[in-house]
Amino acid sequence: MAEQHGTPTAGRPRGRSAVAVPELVERARSGDPRSVARLISLVEDASPLLREVMAALAPYAGNAITVGITGAPGVGKSTSTNALVTELRKSGKRVGVLAVDPSSPFSGGALLGDRIRMGDHATDKDVYIRSMASRGHLGGLGWSTPQAVRVLDAAGCDVILVETVGVGQSEVDIAGLADTTLVLLAPGMGDGIQAAKAGILEIGDLYVINKADRDGANAVRRDLRNALALAQREEDAWRPPILMTTAANGEGVAEVVTEMERHADWLRASGELARRRARRARDEIEAIALTTLRERWSSLGSHESLAGLAVRVAEGTTDPYAAADELLDTVVT
Amino acid sequence: MAEQHGTPTAGRPRGRSAVAVPELVERARSGDPRSVARLISLVEDASPLLREVMAALAPYAGNAITVGITGAPGVGKSTSTNALVTELRKSGKRVGVLAVDPSSPFSGGALLGDRIRMGDHATDKDVYIRSMASRGHLGGLGWSTPQAVRVLDAAGCDVILVETVGVGQSEVDIAGLADTTLVLLAPGMGDGIQAAKAGILEIGDLYVINKADRDGANAVRRDLRNALALAQREEDAWRPPILMTTAANGEGVAEVVTEMERHADWLRASGELARRRARRARDEIEAIALTTLRERWSSLGSHESLAGLAVRVAEGTTDPYAAADELLDTVVT
Repeated sequence: MAEQHGTPTAGRPRGRSAVAVPELVERARSGDPRSVARLISLVEDASPLLREVMAALAPYAGNAITVGITGAPGVGKSTSTNALVTELRKSGKRVGVLAVDPSSPFSGGALLGDRIRMGDHATDKDVYIRSMASRGHLGGLGWSTPQAVRVLDAAGCDVILVETVGVGQSEVDIAGLADTTLVLLAPGMGDGIQAAKAGILEIGDLYVINKADRDGANAVRRDLRNALALAQREEDAWRPPILMTTAANGEGVAEVVTEMERHADWLRASGELARRRARRARDEIEAIALTTLRERWSSLGSHESLAGLAVRVAEGTTDPYAAADELLDTVVT
Repeated sequence: MAEQHGTPTAGRPRGRSAVAVPELVERARSGDPRSVARLISLVEDASPLLREVMAALAPYAGNAITVGITGAPGVGKSTSTNALVTELRKSGKRVGVLAVDPSSPFSGGALLGDRIRMGDHATDKDVYIRSMASRGHLGGLGWSTPQAVRVLDAAGCDVILVETVGVGQSEVDIAGLADTTLVLLAPGMGDGIQAAKAGILEIGDLYVINKADRDGANAVRRDLRNALALAQREEDAWRPPILMTTAANGEGVAEVVTEMERHADWLRASGELARRRARRARDEIEAIALTTLRERWSSLGSHESLAGLAVRVAEGTTDPYAAADELLDTVVT
């Protein structure tokens, strides 16, 4: 997963035999885990086949519920994801897990520690687990994450868990990506004001206080309840429940799954599911369009290129608005 | 600072008398704090005068050193910023502070708690303090932050401190914005692996362990030193120092300022300053160009508009790549 490239035209040297995309999609849909893995690799490597893959997947989209799991480092995201997979498997659900690891802006590397803890499900053929490197551009989730969601969706997953790191911008991103956003908290991670600062109060559909066996869990619940009570909500809006878990021993996890299902029912009944998905598609289309434009303007001649304009702005011989106009004039006509 | 709008064409109702931009820039450069505040408001409100403001500021850019201050909630960013201002004022430096608060994706509101703590410098005419709402788009810092930096730079600040929230994506953003990136840590905020997860190891030019009087500060230093030692650096690269402070009583803060100055000298001598600034200008030009394009394609007819395409992708009747092509074909020719 530690690749150096991040542009959509870069490709991994192929040592594998070429397989036709329609056949690969067919096999993935019939439950072949290697075909699913191969499709996600094509997506992640931004293979030249990417467009063909996306076109082949389109008719099979929209059956899975995507659940984003976010929270500060140390709240137990991986342990909770693992416990949720165990619980979902009890009712026979096919589950996909995308773990979006932080990547260094320099090395593109991803830390693998978390993945090891997911080993419980490594041999279960109805669980797909994939660690994705975050590419940095266009939001913390990386532009290939929504495409990997499409692969798992078309492959017949009932639920796709997207585990992301961190506090801050990436939470807003995951709220854009997911049908359901699950915000994880734990005692000892900072007081109420700090929770509000992290911007979590508007994005959660479910709040889960993990490590509920530790001191301070009830105080976190009380603070969160008070903070959520201040948020103005429409009459018929979803009211996010606050749940308590000890993911390490599975306590409370069944209730989280029950609430996830209740939220999915509400999404469908209220029309919010279609709205969220259209918003997600809009972001994805825009990201792809912008990537295409970036490629066009990075291939311009040196003076009118973005790099050339940037030097002129840094020197003070032009300003960024005039430079942006020049850039668009060259590329857009 | 709790405004509802975030689009570049929105404007605040004007109750103030119109002032010509060149005059405003002239007054700001002669040290009039109200003119500086007015210029930043024009930037933040995305006033119709914005282009004129940027063009008028361009010739005066590039004198200030911009220092980004980042770290997880609870490490003491505001207290440290405050202490750094006090220290910088001792040597007569003019200081600008931009505090980029988290904004709700829904309300656009900013928490004001931190600002109150900066009251020490509220009456010092050589210190400009401004709280900016993070607009969410195009990175956690918001697209108006680099423009506000330009205002403070042209107004004669020697140092501009940009304090941002959080762990995750916004750190990478601030590394892009600042000449010098100062990463704040504190004991009790998670172990070494968690620090690595937060992606801070590549972005810091200075590392400051605050709350050095608390248990565990030395352990944080040891872990950080070990983690930084693993990073590969070029022979002549800057080696980020690790400093210890107790910002609440000012201990160690003078050393931080000394290291900030040493880093600024290195930036100039090595050519890295010009490279970083060209990169920053490039990001800014691109953000402005993309905003312009977004406006164009949000004004298209309903079927070929982004919203119409998004519904078709969500329904599975087209795929995101084909939709992006359609979008670009309509806007770009």
